[in-house]
Amino acid sequence: MHLTHLLLLLLFSQLTSMSNKPLILYTFWTNNGVKVSTFLEELKGAYSSIDYDLKSIDISKGAQKEPWYLKINPKGKIPVLVDRTRNDYVVPESGAILLYLQQHHDKDNKFGWDPKVNPNEYNEAIQWMFFAYDLGPMQNELQHSRSIPEKIPHVEKRYLDQTNRLYGELEARLSQDRDWLVGSGRGKYSIADMTVLPWVHFSSYSGVGLDGWLNVKQWLERIRSRPASAAGLNIGLP
Amino acid sequence: MHLTHLLLLLLFSQLTSMSNKPLILYTFWTNNGVKVSTFLEELKGAYSSIDYDLKSIDISKGAQKEPWYLKINPKGKIPVLVDRTRNDYVVPESGAILLYLQQHHDKDNKFGWDPKVNPNEYNEAIQWMFFAYDLGPMQNELQHSRSIPEKIPHVEKRYLDQTNRLYGELEARLSQDRDWLVGSGRGKYSIADMTVLPWVHFSSYSGVGLDGWLNVKQWLERIRSRPASAAGLNIGLP
Repeated sequence: MHLTHLLLLLLFSQLTSMSNKPLILYTFWTNNGVKVSTFLEELKGAYSSIDYDLKSIDISKGAQKEPWYLKINPKGKIPVLVDRTRNDYVVPESGAILLYLQQHHDKDNKFGWDPKVNPNEYNEAIQWMFFAYDLGPMQNELQHSRSIPEKIPHVEKRYLDQTNRLYGELEARLSQDRDWLVGSGRGKYSIADMTVLPWVHFSSYSGVGLDGWLNVKQWLERIRSRPASAAGLNIGLP
Repeated sequence: MHLTHLLLLLLFSQLTSMSNKPLILYTFWTNNGVKVSTFLEELKGAYSSIDYDLKSIDISKGAQKEPWYLKINPKGKIPVLVDRTRNDYVVPESGAILLYLQQHHDKDNKFGWDPKVNPNEYNEAIQWMFFAYDLGPMQNELQHSRSIPEKIPHVEKRYLDQTNRLYGELEARLSQDRDWLVGSGRGKYSIADMTVLPWVHFSSYSGVGLDGWLNVKQWLERIRSRPASAAGLNIGLP
């Protein structure tokens, strides 16, 4: 073997051993992307065992459709999690990634609930995760309808009404003497909050003002004041 | 005590004991409604212990906003499940109801997976449940954009493209030598299939033809040929 080859091999094995972090996140700075990076940053802060390699997939340049990436996620979407501690298991779909990470890597249930030990809180977290999947498309469509040159008032109004209705549900929940969406007493900051978070964090892009939703606004400030979550919300920028 | 009172009391206690079924479903014939009634009918067929009281909430007449109903579900939406076997625990949100029913009432995991015993299949089912929450709003908006008098071609096209993209993902999955969305081998009919089902079952209302999606069409026929699911899909008609 040529000496250069040998040196390259040595360097390569050095590099790969260096990057033996338990998790890999393929992501970009989108609502669904920061949903996962926020939770990963919180997990990193809470557990010394957790760390991840960050791979930026620039969807503005179509990187998510490149052949090498389609081998990882045939749907050609971000975010995707790869778990080196479980046989390189691949998890697509941001909401499912949060539930996966909570089950396998949040051993003390700091950000969620064990389905057997606390079945009610576990299900309530899932209820609010599905809520985010109601809110997301309506707010996205509101943003889209306001961004296109051919604006149509009744289309825009439809999505504004739907979005407002859902912010109303969120406000009603957070008005119940609680800091977080799920959990007894004032609740616990959990994957339920983190699933709803991106839409509220980016609400100004859709022209949704939070002044009418005082408790939602305070909840958002509460999250943004957490260093880990604040860091997570900025991950994936190109 | 007056005799009439006594007789009324006797009659009342008779009636309440007659309706001591373990579950109550408040529903109506909508996509999210039949998602739950389909699973309840399957559970009823699979377990002799399962039965439920059906309460039709006519949303075309605004019954879901009546004060008595808002006490059960303050969000004023259907479907809602009440579990008499667990302290009248109330579960809103159709996707969460399916996960709840599977955890608490599908003891042999006939329609799902235990999160601890089969964590990968459990998470994959959740991935496809979230997929249905991507598909649902796009197909709903396609249906809406085609139903209004002021049709706008580029709006309709947006939702048609999105809906087609998602049917493409479904078709790709079902083309992988499998009968059902999740599970080893040809898969197992599960809450993942039942969460996606209503949109495919009602696809013609949005003008989505299934001829281009052969595997999706066969999957739908496979489900419709199950007597329990076929019954569930028709529950909630006024």
